Amino acid sequence: MSRAPSFEVVRVDPTGARLGRLTTPHGVVETPAFMPVATHGAVRGVTPRQLEELGATLVLSNAYHLAQRPGVETVRALGGVHGLMAWEGPILTDSGGFQAMSLGGLVRVDDAGVHYRSHVDGRRGTLSPEDAIAVQEAIGVDVAMSLDECVPAAASPAQVAGAVARTTAWAKRGIAARTRPETALFGIVQGGLDAALRAESAAAITALGFDGHAVGGLSVGEPASETARVAAGTVGLLPAGRPRYLMGVGTPGDLLRFVAMGYDLFDCVLPTRNGRNGTLFTRQGKLMIRNAAHARDARPVEDGCPCYTCARFSRGALRHLVLAGEMLGAQLATLHNLHFYLQLMREVRAALAAGSFPARAALAAGSWA
Amino acid sequence: MSRAPSFEVVRVDPTGARLGRLTTPHGVVETPAFMPVATHGAVRGVTPRQLEELGATLVLSNAYHLAQRPGVETVRALGGVHGLMAWEGPILTDSGGFQAMSLGGLVRVDDAGVHYRSHVDGRRGTLSPEDAIAVQEAIGVDVAMSLDECVPAAASPAQVAGAVARTTAWAKRGIAARTRPETALFGIVQGGLDAALRAESAAAITALGFDGHAVGGLSVGEPASETARVAAGTVGLLPAGRPRYLMGVGTPGDLLRFVAMGYDLFDCVLPTRNGRNGTLFTRQGKLMIRNAAHARDARPVEDGCPCYTCARFSRGALRHLVLAGEMLGAQLATLHNLHFYLQLMREVRAALAAGSFPARAALAAGSWA
Repeated sequence: MSRAPSFEVVRVDPTGARLGRLTTPHGVVETPAFMPVATHGAVRGVTPRQLEELGATLVLSNAYHLAQRPGVETVRALGGVHGLMAWEGPILTDSGGFQAMSLGGLVRVDDAGVHYRSHVDGRRGTLSPEDAIAVQEAIGVDVAMSLDECVPAAASPAQVAGAVARTTAWAKRGIAARTRPETALFGIVQGGLDAALRAESAAAITALGFDGHAVGGLSVGEPASETARVAAGTVGLLPAGRPRYLMGVGTPGDLLRFVAMGYDLFDCVLPTRNGRNGTLFTRQGKLMIRNAAHARDARPVEDGCPCYTCARFSRGALRHLVLAGEMLGAQLATLHNLHFYLQLMREVRAALAAGSFPARAALAAGSWA
Repeated sequence: MSRAPSFEVVRVDPTGARLGRLTTPHGVVETPAFMPVATHGAVRGVTPRQLEELGATLVLSNAYHLAQRPGVETVRALGGVHGLMAWEGPILTDSGGFQAMSLGGLVRVDDAGVHYRSHVDGRRGTLSPEDAIAVQEAIGVDVAMSLDECVPAAASPAQVAGAVARTTAWAKRGIAARTRPETALFGIVQGGLDAALRAESAAAITALGFDGHAVGGLSVGEPASETARVAAGTVGLLPAGRPRYLMGVGTPGDLLRFVAMGYDLFDCVLPTRNGRNGTLFTRQGKLMIRNAAHARDARPVEDGCPCYTCARFSRGALRHLVLAGEMLGAQLATLHNLHFYLQLMREVRAALAAGSFPARAALAAGSWA
């Protein structure tokens, strides 16, 4: 349980995609990898056993939310974040920068940190960059994220520049506050859609000796072409020997595209949120299970899919459960979608290992490729 | 798949409790048995695989609700009720009498049947006693219930007497409408809290040759002592060679009490509904997981309980999931509660087989006994 985190690039594809291996105190993560999202300590509607069976390795939670509820001391009393979640595999937590943006009026940011009013109990508090490290170390995450300032796509150039400077200052303070070498710590590059600011941020953050690097502040409302432009322009500025995490991305097609650029880690709420809304991912594209066309369709969501949902339930049955508001409908749709994402990443890794990327991975992505 | 339904009393205990075996087209049900409730075709939050692992055998659904949504022809197109639910074991459906009462203003009852206005799409329709049989045969249930008129505890003597007469008339019409001998058909005894009316109803219903008999119209708002008085007074009026089903009952203590009277089948929403509300059944009584006392408690809900929830999650973790509104909290609490009920019934059957009822069963029920 005390292995120092390490990352090994196993193979670099001619496309720029990398096959890698991230070793953490709670196990090895083969990369490229997709992280299911468990913001409050649970992937919505999915048991840890189901997550294991789906082949998830690294799961994303959120230290800011867990510190608000149930609180750091409670998480510690319950066996840390792994005990709380009943998940024995690796866990990465975001630290609060993105939440500070998404919680809007409840939060104010200055150089000291994130001043919040709790969405749980209304209490006011401040999360400094040192606190962000202390919280993540205390709850025992495998990969911690440095506190960053994340700004929306519509932010002014001055706001973006300010966020870059503050994120760098906070990164330095966070690194200086580390006490637990077995917790990997990743820095986050900001800079909005401005190539020069991205370069400035990347240079500053990568100079600090983080165990890995993330590109934040994308998928925050900008057009997809801008996401791709900035992601492509930034990836080469991140050290090749460390994992590269593109935060909050994306569709199955996005995963293929950004893997090909050389990103290793991804998270996104799409498979879980879309599942709850009755939107299923298939190689033929989105399947809206509420549509009347599926009412009497005895076929599975996706022919040949080995997931529990497709092995046991028809489209018509799933549609009925979703329309009836049955919890099971949301659970089954989420299971299928997570299977789709995790299977896609298995195909991506197999293709990279066999030298058949991106063709083989594109087959698994179908019309998403 | 065409075995005719049959019931065998394996052993009669000195208490009056019976160990039995109900054979249906989809498998054998060892009795006494508790049926998890899947009104709309799913036990809320529980996959069929989990139900199997919990040891459920017979599951209760509702033909009235399924006929409203997704509709009889849709259920047929999806492989019948077993295909819809992805449940390969036996299924019993209630036919609509209780729903006619519980849906209140949307329903009017006269001799022709139940005149409803659909709670799904507002359409008006009538469910006759013949329709009730036709629907249940068409969707392929293992045990069908005759259409009855169920009245609340506060009904007037004239209303209760009217419901008895109508339930008998409907029972005759339903029996005459049978076309599928492999579907077991149970009649329902009504009569409110009036011993004479119960006797009248039991005499009329049991004269008709049903495969089993149910006592309905209890657990509809009356005091528990009245439920027990009427259940005790009625059970001896039901043929000993056929299964006896006490509808809508009850707490773990109720199950022991009514098993001892000679009832064989039970259903109740308590384990599932209470689970969703964060109330857990344990041998020590109810555990309200939202209570602050559990916040940092690393023990399982119940020491020694082998259910998935207790094997993997602490009280504190479960409390966090429930307070955070995570679907997983409701799922885990429901799993534990169903395990408690189904394990209790396994202990009841083992005790009856070993001649150690009720002492051994009382141990499993703990403070509920």
